[in-house]
Amino acid sequence: MHGADLQYLTGFSGSNGALFVSASGAAGDIFCTDSRYTDQAAQQCPDLGVLVARDCLGALVDQCLSQGSSRLGVDGRLRSSQLATISKSGMSATSVDGLVSALRMVKGSEEIAALEEACAITSGAVTALASEIRVGDTEIRVARRLEQLFGEFGAEDRAFSTIVATGANSARPHHAPSDQPLRAGDLLVIDSGARVRGYHADMTRTFMVGEPSGWQVEIHDLVFAAAKSGRSAVRAGVALADLDAASRRVIEGAGFGEYFGHGLGHGIGLDIHEAPMIGPRAEGRLLAHTTITVEPGVYLPGRGGVRIEDSLLVTADGHRSLTSAPRDLRVVG
Amino acid sequence: MHGADLQYLTGFSGSNGALFVSASGAAGDIFCTDSRYTDQAAQQCPDLGVLVARDCLGALVDQCLSQGSSRLGVDGRLRSSQLATISKSGMSATSVDGLVSALRMVKGSEEIAALEEACAITSGAVTALASEIRVGDTEIRVARRLEQLFGEFGAEDRAFSTIVATGANSARPHHAPSDQPLRAGDLLVIDSGARVRGYHADMTRTFMVGEPSGWQVEIHDLVFAAAKSGRSAVRAGVALADLDAASRRVIEGAGFGEYFGHGLGHGIGLDIHEAPMIGPRAEGRLLAHTTITVEPGVYLPGRGGVRIEDSLLVTADGHRSLTSAPRDLRVVG
Repeated sequence: MHGADLQYLTGFSGSNGALFVSASGAAGDIFCTDSRYTDQAAQQCPDLGVLVARDCLGALVDQCLSQGSSRLGVDGRLRSSQLATISKSGMSATSVDGLVSALRMVKGSEEIAALEEACAITSGAVTALASEIRVGDTEIRVARRLEQLFGEFGAEDRAFSTIVATGANSARPHHAPSDQPLRAGDLLVIDSGARVRGYHADMTRTFMVGEPSGWQVEIHDLVFAAAKSGRSAVRAGVALADLDAASRRVIEGAGFGEYFGHGLGHGIGLDIHEAPMIGPRAEGRLLAHTTITVEPGVYLPGRGGVRIEDSLLVTADGHRSLTSAPRDLRVVG
Repeated sequence: MHGADLQYLTGFSGSNGALFVSASGAAGDIFCTDSRYTDQAAQQCPDLGVLVARDCLGALVDQCLSQGSSRLGVDGRLRSSQLATISKSGMSATSVDGLVSALRMVKGSEEIAALEEACAITSGAVTALASEIRVGDTEIRVARRLEQLFGEFGAEDRAFSTIVATGANSARPHHAPSDQPLRAGDLLVIDSGARVRGYHADMTRTFMVGEPSGWQVEIHDLVFAAAKSGRSAVRAGVALADLDAASRRVIEGAGFGEYFGHGLGHGIGLDIHEAPMIGPRAEGRLLAHTTITVEPGVYLPGRGGVRIEDSLLVTADGHRSLTSAPRDLRVVG
């Protein structure tokens, strides 16, 4: 089972484990991990029967058989040899992919509190960072400084490896920070998040190193409007594809549709990318108490790009933005 | 296919992809990723046929069928629904688990150069950090400062989330840094690594905050001796279990065997933990040009622990240590 799914159901945060849940409740639930995590499992999962074994799946299959179970629903990725282990045991395996991630979409009050805190730290740290940025700083240096600020503002860690992309690099949505120095005239995309009690914030702001040119103002204005339109469409019940369209049509209407090559957003929680995924072909509707990102962008290859991303809590009649750093084009450096 | 396996074979560093390799060479190799990575794949895999699809596995299965392939060896984790996709296509799937990770064990000269650089940065940054550490610093603050130093010394990023564990926390091998302040009388374990060109360094040093007590000197001396004995046993051809024993028997001989609850080490490379895993029940032998860690520890619950870990290159007649920071018990604070 996927790590965050397991953590959600059991509280266990280690890197190896498997959980058996009895559908009828007739058999007890069993959690299995290896000997590195004996103490941690006892501490984090005091109410679960914990089995310690080198081969967690094999041990669980044995337990299931001894309890008379004959059908296993599998949620998660397995090696084909592990699926063979199930087949050989005489049990039948059925895919129940996404069962737990669907449960995880709707957040409880403690989860929302952790996300609020992570987002507040992110907003505060990025705002503080902006006043420190200088021409000549490298992307890597800016990224590490921001992660240090996350710690100083109270985060346990970063939510993911911070993206700092300057100049032409800002046209690459997944750019990894490099030794590239910030130069006057660069668009500067900073995509980052703090992690609090296991929950991941996600926010992107685009800055201008020195004074902007006309085309830079133009695409920033456009993405700003698209982000606003996207946020305005967020409410419980909206179709995910319609939400994507609310933002995308602004960019397409200005003739930049081909330069917005990714979906509008995704869920955030124990994972930085989780259900629901929001894009043109997404199926389903938004649920209340789901936490998502809205993050349109325009990327002009070889020149530069702009992305504006917020983390939002979906409510019955709209949303509450959890990230709050200024969204307008601020000049830094 | 696992990310690092895919990166090793193709150069592709994105988060989603699948590779089809024709066993006979009769059919061309095909790499598939999704539209977020169209440009990146073209840039990183110029010699591969790149297929862009939302469902990479399904697209590859279709290609295989059209080329007349009937048997698929699968290396990696799949959802059971993905294995069902293969079955339904009429192809047979066989597990070839570990095929690529076995290839990755033995490093080429460019890989070794990247690991040398990552380890040199790690050694330099930890040594520099030691002179800055002060009583009252928090674990998180020390961790983030070290990661900043990695960047200043030339790393692209950290190899993993830095472990800083002070006082009783140092008895927990996988402790996550907290707001706990460093106090005089604490053992302080710092387990960290820099990443260079995708390659991961791994080194642990244990410091003393203020002057040590007798028991702290005793367990540090013991782990120091065990680490030395382990490193001395490293050479091409040694059985992995014998290598573990070379270090473990020193700790067991002193009566602390029950307080060393993990294996002696693991391979390092494109992953921070990769083959070979070195422990009491490990099978197989060490190969030349493999890069591994040797990391014995003694953990006294509620009191504190010591771990000393180095990254080593295995040679025909011994090893070369890639990490070089002082291993003796240094007083900081």
